[in-house]
Amino acid sequence: MESTVPCKVADELEELLREASQVFSDYVRSSRDPQAPVIPRIEKLNLTIPEEDGMGAAGIWDDIQTICGAATNTWSERFLYKLYASPTPIGVVGEALVGLLNNNAHVFQASPIGALIEDKVGRQLAELAKFPADTAAGLTFPGGSYSNMHALMVARNRRFSGLKRGGFAGAMAGGEWRRPMIFTSAHAHYSIEKAAVAAGIGLDNVVSVPTDAAGRMDSHALRVLVEQAIANGGAPFFVNATAGTTVLGAFDPIDEIAVVCADHGLWLHVDGSWGGPLALFSSDEELGRYRVDRADSFTVNPHKLMGVPLQCSFLLMRDGLAPMREALGLGASYLFHGGSPDVLDDVGDATMGCGRRPDAIKLWLAWRYHGTQYYRRRLAAARRLALDFADMVSARPPTALGCWRLVARPQSTCVCFWFVPGQPHSAPLPSWGHATRLLCARLNSLGHVLVDYAAVDLPAGPLPTFFRLPLNSPHVTKETLASVLAAIEQTAQALTEEDPRCFVADSS
Amino acid sequence: MESTVPCKVADELEELLREASQVFSDYVRSSRDPQAPVIPRIEKLNLTIPEEDGMGAAGIWDDIQTICGAATNTWSERFLYKLYASPTPIGVVGEALVGLLNNNAHVFQASPIGALIEDKVGRQLAELAKFPADTAAGLTFPGGSYSNMHALMVARNRRFSGLKRGGFAGAMAGGEWRRPMIFTSAHAHYSIEKAAVAAGIGLDNVVSVPTDAAGRMDSHALRVLVEQAIANGGAPFFVNATAGTTVLGAFDPIDEIAVVCADHGLWLHVDGSWGGPLALFSSDEELGRYRVDRADSFTVNPHKLMGVPLQCSFLLMRDGLAPMREALGLGASYLFHGGSPDVLDDVGDATMGCGRRPDAIKLWLAWRYHGTQYYRRRLAAARRLALDFADMVSARPPTALGCWRLVARPQSTCVCFWFVPGQPHSAPLPSWGHATRLLCARLNSLGHVLVDYAAVDLPAGPLPTFFRLPLNSPHVTKETLASVLAAIEQTAQALTEEDPRCFVADSS
Repeated sequence: MESTVPCKVADELEELLREASQVFSDYVRSSRDPQAPVIPRIEKLNLTIPEEDGMGAAGIWDDIQTICGAATNTWSERFLYKLYASPTPIGVVGEALVGLLNNNAHVFQASPIGALIEDKVGRQLAELAKFPADTAAGLTFPGGSYSNMHALMVARNRRFSGLKRGGFAGAMAGGEWRRPMIFTSAHAHYSIEKAAVAAGIGLDNVVSVPTDAAGRMDSHALRVLVEQAIANGGAPFFVNATAGTTVLGAFDPIDEIAVVCADHGLWLHVDGSWGGPLALFSSDEELGRYRVDRADSFTVNPHKLMGVPLQCSFLLMRDGLAPMREALGLGASYLFHGGSPDVLDDVGDATMGCGRRPDAIKLWLAWRYHGTQYYRRRLAAARRLALDFADMVSARPPTALGCWRLVARPQSTCVCFWFVPGQPHSAPLPSWGHATRLLCARLNSLGHVLVDYAAVDLPAGPLPTFFRLPLNSPHVTKETLASVLAAIEQTAQALTEEDPRCFVADSS
Repeated sequence: MESTVPCKVADELEELLREASQVFSDYVRSSRDPQAPVIPRIEKLNLTIPEEDGMGAAGIWDDIQTICGAATNTWSERFLYKLYASPTPIGVVGEALVGLLNNNAHVFQASPIGALIEDKVGRQLAELAKFPADTAAGLTFPGGSYSNMHALMVARNRRFSGLKRGGFAGAMAGGEWRRPMIFTSAHAHYSIEKAAVAAGIGLDNVVSVPTDAAGRMDSHALRVLVEQAIANGGAPFFVNATAGTTVLGAFDPIDEIAVVCADHGLWLHVDGSWGGPLALFSSDEELGRYRVDRADSFTVNPHKLMGVPLQCSFLLMRDGLAPMREALGLGASYLFHGGSPDVLDDVGDATMGCGRRPDAIKLWLAWRYHGTQYYRRRLAAARRLALDFADMVSARPPTALGCWRLVARPQSTCVCFWFVPGQPHSAPLPSWGHATRLLCARLNSLGHVLVDYAAVDLPAGPLPTFFRLPLNSPHVTKETLASVLAAIEQTAQALTEEDPRCFVADSS
């Protein structure tokens, strides 16, 4: 790849990237510092765009410092906020490489390597999911929501065959018509509802299936609801099960759900956007048995638990890409010239988009760099840490201001708990949620820790708002988590000193 | 940002990025070499994923060479294939920075800088589009197709107000119901049709509006078709105009179309995915007058003509984000905690997705680096080059094997032409398209040049397949283009030597 011809643009890139290697690694160094803030204090930023000449290489590093200084610090082990964390270093390199090549994974000729790697990685993930090797394939989409939406639309167009051409109006004009209905757990991600809005199905036709006490979809309730829907003239066609719910990290009972789907001819999609890798890579007794291969389609986001930079989301299809092409493809003649015997020729036509980043390259590169064993170890460690952290919460002695209470034994790597204000077992329930929100807001405002809260309904009733800490980052340790619990206690102390009645919720 | 604490992960990143600065710039150097291939020869690649340990830093550079060697070379000035080209060097740095920070632009707290910059850049683009400064705003989507799809869905849910909740089934159950219909030019991008499939509108309800002789939407025909649709019981609600059509680079007459839309209460969307920057930055007499502000929504992809790496697409909304939130938002309580007075708090809820790359950072950084003047100059140069190239084609003398014929004077920076086989003015029309496809396939197979072909219908009838060369890259010169014409002539010579009757199309 050497060339002796002078090349200004290459020199410019070399200089910028050499400087970036220093600036970016210094950023990581400072972000990993035990004292580093997780949430920046936003000063007044000057974001003005220069009307005339730009600042070029001389001025741009100040801008990059501005960006870094006003970014949320995902490299900190105290970033315990959302379902992702910092990438691994090779992930950053992969991102830069994708930017450098600027290849477009819509047609083969615009990115041969993108197509070949996407095919390879899709099949490899499908193999881990135990999908049939001769048919299964996968494509990347710009995030889990888009992967889920594509699954829903493929299922919709397959079931209502006139819909692609005639739309709902055409399909419904033809005599007998039944309302399309989909089913998802009450704890599932809202992207299923968004997809239903997008697809013209509507929120009213998204049936929320109750969960069991552990937050897993109640498959008996699913059967009853599907049969009720049919009896009432609806047309159920799609069930979304979740592998790792957003809040509790629960895994819906896929074996039971698959039986209901088979009995009623429903498309079974599994949203493993977050928890999918636990099912694919886990040797854990519980999670390793999870039968993703019972699904028709399966979403998994390596940009969450696997440390690939956002975005990298795969939709795996048990029966390959043909159903996608059939449901969504148009074969625009000016783009997709066809004529190639290769199924990789025009993968873009199987999607709702056109130009596509070859995101699979990032996962492939990281996978080659780290090896499969790395992901097994990393995910096993996160799982072990979640169980240890749960024990830590349960065993932590009460303070003068309150006590610790676990929401449930973690089913994956999300740990949910309360700091219950007042004397153990005597605090009124509304104060639990009130305290969580208050503590969370104050703690996050200090900038040293970033945690999140949530609330869910269980069969016994709604749970008051609790802390939810997803353990995604390899940087998190028991010491980190102990320090977060201590920080919550200190925050409770500080709030109480300001207002002794701060945790008393009014009854509204 | 300095820190003295030892940090292995930062050292790892530093080492990788330092090596990358060399490897990546060498790649660019070799890619810009006059002899460099544009399309790689794909050898048998070993893409195996290691089951146990990965190869780490020692082995990964061979993999990166493998990827680079099997990528399409967008840095070459002979990449004249699709509507994008290589990024500028600061674009690569921006991409790496987005990967480094791994911030998520769905809620403010997960990426303050992402939200602030997206807001700023969206407003700046809206200002260039002359949208009202007090309301207009923009959001990024993972590509022009997704931006267009969001515009359609916002318009759909706004017009059919029961649809978000009840879906089509609910909305149609309520008595009188008319078929939703949308209108787009026969030359528009297929993403509008894809969006119609996604939205449950269906291909049959996408009315293809004929164009004038220049490939611009015929606004009189639009009016007639809209009125016919209404008379036949349809419910037109959305018109897509194009700023820079995919093939001819035509700009639909937005002023005339806006009148039809106003008369019938239709949402006017402008798809400027490719040509948008020409309207925003051009001082060109024709393009600079283009009134994007007549639209309700406007898609523009800085990842095409502006050299930002794929993906960076903005959807600008004249009335701001409120219609998006209303049409698509759910306000999932576990993610979007609300309570903030700031409209930037949960931009993700205005989209169909959840996690979002802060793609706007890449454009902002490049814009600060280059300045506005750079884009004006770059786009003006591309426009001038297109006109010069058209003159070059027209003036090029015939060879013994054929002659050059321009499809039309370029309306932006796409240049379309034939190499007409045989004696001037005597070749039968079917041979024109046959020759184009043959020449294109052979030329591209040689790997030194990558061009594309297309065909469109005009009022006078279908045009035979022609060469279409979009001029996106700042690296393209007149010499490049002269060498491409010479290469086509040489290819014609070589093909004719192999088979003297190769350009004779059978009449089928």
